[in-house]
Amino acid sequence: MGDLTGQVADPAPGREREPKQDRSRATRLRVLEAAVACLAEHGWSGSTVAVVCARAGVSRGAAQHHFPTREELFTAAIAHVADQWLTAVRERALALPREGPDRTYAVVDMLVAVHTGPLFRAALHLWTATTAEERLRPGVTALEARIGREAHRLAVDFLGADESRPGVRETVQATLDMARGLGLANLLSDDSARRARIVRQWAAMLEQALHG
Amino acid sequence: MGDLTGQVADPAPGREREPKQDRSRATRLRVLEAAVACLAEHGWSGSTVAVVCARAGVSRGAAQHHFPTREELFTAAIAHVADQWLTAVRERALALPREGPDRTYAVVDMLVAVHTGPLFRAALHLWTATTAEERLRPGVTALEARIGREAHRLAVDFLGADESRPGVRETVQATLDMARGLGLANLLSDDSARRARIVRQWAAMLEQALHG
Repeated sequence: MGDLTGQVADPAPGREREPKQDRSRATRLRVLEAAVACLAEHGWSGSTVAVVCARAGVSRGAAQHHFPTREELFTAAIAHVADQWLTAVRERALALPREGPDRTYAVVDMLVAVHTGPLFRAALHLWTATTAEERLRPGVTALEARIGREAHRLAVDFLGADESRPGVRETVQATLDMARGLGLANLLSDDSARRARIVRQWAAMLEQALHG
Repeated sequence: MGDLTGQVADPAPGREREPKQDRSRATRLRVLEAAVACLAEHGWSGSTVAVVCARAGVSRGAAQHHFPTREELFTAAIAHVADQWLTAVRERALALPREGPDRTYAVVDMLVAVHTGPLFRAALHLWTATTAEERLRPGVTALEARIGREAHRLAVDFLGADESRPGVRETVQATLDMARGLGLANLLSDDSARRARIVRQWAAMLEQALHG
C-alpha cells in the first residue's frame, strides 16, 4: 500500500492559528487512508470500523465524529483517494509527450496503470460489497458515476479526442473499460507482461482511430 | 438467477439401474447451482455453507460428502457453471452469421453478454474474496487461468483470428479484457445502452484489425 499510505497529506506546518482544526483534519485524513488500505488488503467483510481505527491509530469516537456510519466512512475514503488520484494524474500528464503515437501510448499506459493499483483494488471491493449491501448503494452508485465521468473527461482531454466524430466517444469509453478489465485480470496474479503487449497494441489501434 | 438456476441438469430419467448414483449426482448439481446463485446475490461473506444448503434443500452432511470445505464448494461451483457456459456458447455460436462484419459483431456481442450475467457476478465475488482469503487462492487462481485460456481459445476460433499476424493475439485479448470491464461497469447500474454503442464500435475496429 506504499503508494497510497505515502499520500497522507499532513496538515501544513505553518498554520498555527488553527491547531484544533488542523488536528481534526489530520485525523480525518488518517482514517480515510487507513480505510482504503484495509479495503484493498482485507476486503469489505474484513474492514470493520474497529480495524480501520486501529490501523489509523485513532479512537472510535474520533472516527465517528467525522463519519457516523461505516457506509459513509468507506464511500468517503474511495472518493478521497479518487480525488487524490485525479490530481496526481493531471500533474503527471504534464510530463507526457505532447502529441503523436508516443503520447497516445503514454496516456493509455497511464490509464491502465491506475487500474492495477491499490485504489482500483479498494474500489473493486467496495463495488462488489455494494451488490450485496443495500445501504451502500446510493452513495457508491453516485460515486462510481462521478469517477466514471471524470475519468472519461480526462481521457478525452489527454488523448486530444474529437468526440464530434462518429465512434470517437465510444472508442475512448472502450479504452477505459479495457483498462478496468486489465485491472481485474491483475487481481490474483501478476499480469504485467501480457498487459504491456496489450497496451502497446491498443495504443496503436487507438492512435489510428483517433488521429489516423 | 433464472438463466443459471434454469440450467440444473436433472439426472436422465432412463437410468434406473443407478438410482443412488443419480440421486447423489442430482444433489451435487443442486448444491453447485445454489452456491453460484448465493454468491451472485449475497457475495462471499453472505454465502456460508449453511445458506447454500438451505437454498439447495439438502442437508449439510450431504453437501459435505461432495465438498468437504467451503473453498472446495465455491471453486467447484464456478468451475461447473463456467463449463456449462462454455458448452452453451459453443452451441449458440453455430447460429451466428458465418463470416464478415456481421459475424464479428455477433461474436463480440456474445462475449460481452456473458460478462454481464450472474456467472460473471458470482465469479467476481469469488475473485475479490480470494484477494483476502489465502485458502481460496490456489484453487481460484488455477480456475481463473483455465477459464481465461478457454475463453481466449473460443474467441480466436469464433473470430477466425490469425494469431500468427503481429498484434492479432493482443487484439483478441484486449476484446476479452474490454468485455470484463463492461461487466464491471454493469455491476451497480444498468449500463446496457452505453454498452451497445461500445460493442458496435469495438466490433468495427476489430473487424478492421483482424480482416481489414
